[in-house]
Amino acid sequence: MSEEEKAAVLIEALPYIQRFAGKIFVIKYGGSAMGERFTDVILDIIWLKQVGIHPVVVHGGGKEITAMLERLGHRAQFVEGLRVTDEAVMEVVEMVLSGAVNPRLVAAFNQHDGGAVGLSGVDGMLLEVAKKHHPAGDIGYVGEVVHVNTALIEGLLDRHLIPVIAPVGVDREGRRYNVNADEAAGAVAGALGAEKLFLITDVPGIVRRGPGGSEVVSKITAEEIRQLVESGEIYGGMIPKVKACLTALEAGAKHVHIINGEDPHALLLEVFTDRGIGTMVLPAGEGPE
Amino acid sequence: MSEEEKAAVLIEALPYIQRFAGKIFVIKYGGSAMGERFTDVILDIIWLKQVGIHPVVVHGGGKEITAMLERLGHRAQFVEGLRVTDEAVMEVVEMVLSGAVNPRLVAAFNQHDGGAVGLSGVDGMLLEVAKKHHPAGDIGYVGEVVHVNTALIEGLLDRHLIPVIAPVGVDREGRRYNVNADEAAGAVAGALGAEKLFLITDVPGIVRRGPGGSEVVSKITAEEIRQLVESGEIYGGMIPKVKACLTALEAGAKHVHIINGEDPHALLLEVFTDRGIGTMVLPAGEGPE
Amino acid sequence: MSEEEKAAVLIEALPYIQRFAGKIFVIKYGGSAMGERFTDVILDIIWLKQVGIHPVVVHGGGKEITAMLERLGHRAQFVEGLRVTDEAVMEVVEMVLSGAVNPRLVAAFNQHDGGAVGLSGVDGMLLEVAKKHHPAGDIGYVGEVVHVNTALIEGLLDRHLIPVIAPVGVDREGRRYNVNADEAAGAVAGALGAEKLFLITDVPGIVRRGPGGSEVVSKITAEEIRQLVESGEIYGGMIPKVKACLTALEAGAKHVHIINGEDPHALLLEVFTDRGIGTMVLPAGEGPE
Amino acid sequence: MSEEEKAAVLIEALPYIQRFAGKIFVIKYGGSAMGERFTDVILDIIWLKQVGIHPVVVHGGGKEITAMLERLGHRAQFVEGLRVTDEAVMEVVEMVLSGAVNPRLVAAFNQHDGGAVGLSGVDGMLLEVAKKHHPAGDIGYVGEVVHVNTALIEGLLDRHLIPVIAPVGVDREGRRYNVNADEAAGAVAGALGAEKLFLITDVPGIVRRGPGGSEVVSKITAEEIRQLVESGEIYGGMIPKVKACLTALEAGAKHVHIINGEDPHALLLEVFTDRGIGTMVLPAGEGPE
Amino acid sequence: MSEEEKAAVLIEALPYIQRFAGKIFVIKYGGSAMGERFTDVILDIIWLKQVGIHPVVVHGGGKEITAMLERLGHRAQFVEGLRVTDEAVMEVVEMVLSGAVNPRLVAAFNQHDGGAVGLSGVDGMLLEVAKKHHPAGDIGYVGEVVHVNTALIEGLLDRHLIPVIAPVGVDREGRRYNVNADEAAGAVAGALGAEKLFLITDVPGIVRRGPGGSEVVSKITAEEIRQLVESGEIYGGMIPKVKACLTALEAGAKHVHIINGEDPHALLLEVFTDRGIGTMVLPAGEGPE
Amino acid sequence: MSEEEKAAVLIEALPYIQRFAGKIFVIKYGGSAMGERFTDVILDIIWLKQVGIHPVVVHGGGKEITAMLERLGHRAQFVEGLRVTDEAVMEVVEMVLSGAVNPRLVAAFNQHDGGAVGLSGVDGMLLEVAKKHHPAGDIGYVGEVVHVNTALIEGLLDRHLIPVIAPVGVDREGRRYNVNADEAAGAVAGALGAEKLFLITDVPGIVRRGPGGSEVVSKITAEEIRQLVESGEIYGGMIPKVKACLTALEAGAKHVHIINGEDPHALLLEVFTDRGIGTMVLPAGEGPE
Repeated sequence: MSEEEKAAVLIEALPYIQRFAGKIFVIKYGGSAMGERFTDVILDIIWLKQVGIHPVVVHGGGKEITAMLERLGHRAQFVEGLRVTDEAVMEVVEMVLSGAVNPRLVAAFNQHDGGAVGLSGVDGMLLEVAKKHHPAGDIGYVGEVVHVNTALIEGLLDRHLIPVIAPVGVDREGRRYNVNADEAAGAVAGALGAEKLFLITDVPGIVRRGPGGSEVVSKITAEEIRQLVESGEIYGGMIPKVKACLTALEAGAKHVHIINGEDPHALLLEVFTDRGIGTMVLPAGEGPE
Repeated sequence: MSEEEKAAVLIEALPYIQRFAGKIFVIKYGGSAMGERFTDVILDIIWLKQVGIHPVVVHGGGKEITAMLERLGHRAQFVEGLRVTDEAVMEVVEMVLSGAVNPRLVAAFNQHDGGAVGLSGVDGMLLEVAKKHHPAGDIGYVGEVVHVNTALIEGLLDRHLIPVIAPVGVDREGRRYNVNADEAAGAVAGALGAEKLFLITDVPGIVRRGPGGSEVVSKITAEEIRQLVESGEIYGGMIPKVKACLTALEAGAKHVHIINGEDPHALLLEVFTDRGIGTMVLPAGEGPE
Repeated sequence: MSEEEKAAVLIEALPYIQRFAGKIFVIKYGGSAMGERFTDVILDIIWLKQVGIHPVVVHGGGKEITAMLERLGHRAQFVEGLRVTDEAVMEVVEMVLSGAVNPRLVAAFNQHDGGAVGLSGVDGMLLEVAKKHHPAGDIGYVGEVVHVNTALIEGLLDRHLIPVIAPVGVDREGRRYNVNADEAAGAVAGALGAEKLFLITDVPGIVRRGPGGSEVVSKITAEEIRQLVESGEIYGGMIPKVKACLTALEAGAKHVHIINGEDPHALLLEVFTDRGIGTMVLPAGEGPE
Repeated sequence: MSEEEKAAVLIEALPYIQRFAGKIFVIKYGGSAMGERFTDVILDIIWLKQVGIHPVVVHGGGKEITAMLERLGHRAQFVEGLRVTDEAVMEVVEMVLSGAVNPRLVAAFNQHDGGAVGLSGVDGMLLEVAKKHHPAGDIGYVGEVVHVNTALIEGLLDRHLIPVIAPVGVDREGRRYNVNADEAAGAVAGALGAEKLFLITDVPGIVRRGPGGSEVVSKITAEEIRQLVESGEIYGGMIPKVKACLTALEAGAKHVHIINGEDPHALLLEVFTDRGIGTMVLPAGEGPE
Repeated sequence: MSEEEKAAVLIEALPYIQRFAGKIFVIKYGGSAMGERFTDVILDIIWLKQVGIHPVVVHGGGKEITAMLERLGHRAQFVEGLRVTDEAVMEVVEMVLSGAVNPRLVAAFNQHDGGAVGLSGVDGMLLEVAKKHHPAGDIGYVGEVVHVNTALIEGLLDRHLIPVIAPVGVDREGRRYNVNADEAAGAVAGALGAEKLFLITDVPGIVRRGPGGSEVVSKITAEEIRQLVESGEIYGGMIPKVKACLTALEAGAKHVHIINGEDPHALLLEVFTDRGIGTMVLPAGEGPE
Repeated sequence: MSEEEKAAVLIEALPYIQRFAGKIFVIKYGGSAMGERFTDVILDIIWLKQVGIHPVVVHGGGKEITAMLERLGHRAQFVEGLRVTDEAVMEVVEMVLSGAVNPRLVAAFNQHDGGAVGLSGVDGMLLEVAKKHHPAGDIGYVGEVVHVNTALIEGLLDRHLIPVIAPVGVDREGRRYNVNADEAAGAVAGALGAEKLFLITDVPGIVRRGPGGSEVVSKITAEEIRQLVESGEIYGGMIPKVKACLTALEAGAKHVHIINGEDPHALLLEVFTDRGIGTMVLPAGEGPE
């Protein structure tokens, strides 16, 4: 690549940098998306921070939890697809999220001078939750976010640090709960009035069943999502992801993006180049052209 | 107790509150000391904070680590009493410290509106370490603190939050290391110029072998400790504790106190009443009576 | 008392400290209540300050004024129980309040590192008053508070100083007026949005005439006070005190407490122990159980 | 006077305003100087404040004290010209200074929107003193300033308020002492690093005995003062005034001015016009031409 | 003039200084008014600043522009009295205003320690304009203020600097426009919520044709101006000046004053003495007595 | 170019962004370098600002000055290559620099939301100069920087504005002087302790005469420059440029870069890519490998 072409790339990013400086981006980085492109994602997020954007990371860790539960001889039990989380399971969930996935991410950021600080919902009552009630019976320590304490996050952002949040919630009695990472990210994005919520997953975006087979949607409104879910065009594993989008938008986030963690630098390209990647979800009423 | 007696207790505390307001106290709370009196210690520390002292907690967790290593089938290996910490062991160490002991402490504080935030040395490069070299051979991921990033701690103290630190260190390449909790607390106390370092342990203070049997020393200087170690009057399990005292004093802490976590409210009584508890260690030259 | 009992007293205070930290307490300390327990009251107020509460003191001084008037050969003149305050009397009132009672209080606080600063309503136009008009004729320089300049008080509280205010008012022409200390305290508490107003007096609380003789009321609402005054169950010297309570509550203070300055550490026990002392007055509508 | 002449007067003041903006002027206003021109002095000081200078007022009150002592039947007792101040006398001294002279001054300032706040040395331990020992015997509560707590004064100056200080000192046990007002002003000026100290008195400046009779000196150095005192050319009532000058200069004040309170607007003319009034005292070494 | 008279002048100014401290005064200083009294005006404005008023200067420069256009051989072209400003003319306009008149003014201020900073509407998009459309045809780069960026001005005022603004506007494409200086000053005064707008011109105030010949009006409301313009009593060159008054009042300025730059210290006398000079224009409804 | 290549360019810039964030870069943009690549340079500088670097621009304008002098019929006069600058010439110099080149640059920045503010040395006494004395005779208003008032520049940088400075100096009497733009930039860089000074010129870097013809030096120390000037290997038009480098380094700038304004995005590529462009000058002692 010529020097001139290099410069053109940098200059292409300028209006995006100007537009987003000072804004908050919440990035949900799923465990299943932490693959080969792990370092790419880390560098992309540091890039955001260096050009004046405030990134907040919420991570998942389902695969690691499952692996550790097996090593410790726990037998999985499910109620309508939701893991029954008794106290022993919850201990493993927290140990893996706060003690393995979270520090690994934080260390990776800091290895590149990212200034990251690991948190979980327990810290400063960041994610206060209530027990989730399920019609089919008691599913144990599964929580629903009822309050996000944004002061702690904002304090770190003011000091130019990157908060990296494990999706463990806590109640007023100090009991810890498993919280769905997409939901946690949506709640955090909403509470912070984030400009954007990114869901970095292992799919290329929202996929809908169309007449000519499946296709990735590039722009969609909250309203349209609801219709397509009802009509069955969005279905299966796509459902929780689109639900998190709707949650975040309802709570006050401006836009939600679903991108694939295995696309090289998908996040950077989505934000700073003319051609976006993945799916962008807009609030109802703010329709695509 | 009469109302008047109650008032007398509160008033007795007043000059101590006035003396220590605005000062930093680092409190090392050992895993083996987290027993029946757990809630007492938590409340004592919140008390410190409420009267204007800045507590910083460093915890241990040896017992829990050993238990989890056994559950996962790791075979313990030691070199001159130091656990050989290969990568697999280190993963368990971090998981237990950052993912089990730390959140349990933080949640206990916050259950009583303590405003605690859990950290490990990985967060914001809080505890930067170098590999410890041992004459008897490679003992793996055992670290020695080379730098404490006090800015993050001070930022939390400014916001009236209690930092609760897991003794996991990190190097510039993002590798995590096991750090002795006493050493970590000493380094943190020194770097912060703490007024006091408390070691909450399972012994009543520094015990020395005397002519009439063992006795708890109530005040001692760094100099005297060195002499008693040399003469063998301080020995065995007492050695690492007195070493942490010396480290903290050399690094700049003003005084070190060793107290027993099973004495009810030992910390509160040590700080706020006329009769101290446990052993107080003074810098060389600043002698008792 | 055992060490453990001592600790229990301190810990009992913790939730109260947490509840009231950062709040403003206005304390009216009447001249007739400055007796044997003078130092107790001073220490109690410093205690409040040290645990993060913002105390503001308003004092009286009727006895000292009367004594000095006599020494200077003034003949007392009253109209319906109100002292006729001509210019010569007013000079003595101010001299005693600002030049004798106030500095004595301030010095007592500072002897215990209380960081107190004496003020009167003249300073920075703290208590702007208008002449009180009395149906029975001109009673001279007796004032009614029309405006409280809270900025000066708040500036001192920000610097962790205790304002000690003599109840002398001033008008725009620089004339000084005698202000009833209970009224002054009520106006100050209201203007500051104080959490609590304490009236430290020489009675054990609000006393009502009941069927079985007089009794101290432990909790009462503004509404009930009005009824009991009307029914004559509250009467005599109790009237001005309950009026000050009503004034403060109407002006915005949350609760008013009447306690006896001769009960040892009544203030401390009222605030920091489970069993209150004296009478607590609540706003209309916020009834006792 | 023509409009043009008026403008010329204002413009003449400009370079002086520019030179002194942001500087501290301490003004000692003696009781004997509070005569017909009282309001002139008040307005002059407010003028200083309005053009960005920070005035700090220290007042006297000897005449009023003597009058009140007489009214209360105290018999004056002197040791080498110094009043023996027993406890009863001290009470009157404080009562008159803090309770009569001080509020009268403060009210006069605030009548013209001066934003004045009255203080004495008791407030916030402003003037910490030690008992003055006199070779001829015990003269009672006469104090010597050992420490000036400038923080309280500076806090008021930051809020654009005029501190008005009664020269009553206090010791660590809360005992109050009579302090010579000239000395107090000198100590305050020195501690604040004041640009100028003004002594507003009832004489036209420093008067020296010369061959052709007495004459007012317009400029003099500290050194020259010492010589003239020794040679007897400065003598009598002039001595304490020149001593206060020397104290202030030694403590760090830049220049001292002695002016007559009965000259109309002497202060304003001294500061803001080309021709000064009274005597200016310079530090040793910084000689007049 | 006697010393006493001098003092009287200064003291006469005090209530005005107190009333206007902290307020913003916008001063339009026309090129034709920069005559013999140039230095007087500069000193008057610095005087305002030194007593706590925030002056903002907007200047004109018509005469200098015309002179330079002639030197460069441009032929003047007018459409109904408005200069047709093509690109070449606009270059000269900006060069003269920003490169000659503005730095001359700034240097004059700074020669007297005025702390002035020169700006034009281009700086920080201070004066964003739109092209003015004229019914009689295209008159080129003549602009109408559509937005005033007050942040830059306020930033300088916070640092006690005097902004001196050349009336050159700019649009979003970076094109510069000629803006009428009276209009620019009116827009700036309105946007800043200025207390006063001064138009320093070469006339003694608003002149109206009356039965007994022309007369200078000393006070007038916006409403009355409109009537007198309609009735033809205000006419000719007076029209643009009264229009600027109306613009400023509508945009939020409190009062507008028209004074003559050749009256010695007209500005100072207008603001700080009892007898004003020139014409004061009040908002409709706030009528002269 | 593929998406992946684009991302690689952005990521390549990251470590440079991290290294330089918060640092000051002074950029001298010569009039002769304002050619086809004008917009490139503007965007490059805005880029710097957006990634947290603080750019300060100093511009030249020799060509425009010469053109205007000719249009106005001035006859050029030189003394040893230096333009004799009489008052009439100086007026043109200032008019062109402050009234033509400066606003053109500022408008170009602001057209791209650059937040630029134009200044000259006159503003806030930014560049205080003394008359330059030349051995060959009086060369008129040519100045030498004796003091840089950095407060004004720093105030603008704090508000995220780009100061754009015309090299016109001023003395205490308000007289304006022509200052060499390279010298002005060097003085500004030194006074601000700039991390880097860039000289954007019309040459590709420092050119030295070598055995095999002329060559561009990529790295050189101050020491080496002095030797090469002495030996004649650096000569002619290169001399003033290398002198400005030496001035800036002596005054405290860390590094100086000479780059060609006609290389597309030379500034951006020099700062943010692995292969620099032009010549980098290091302080003596800090040699190239």
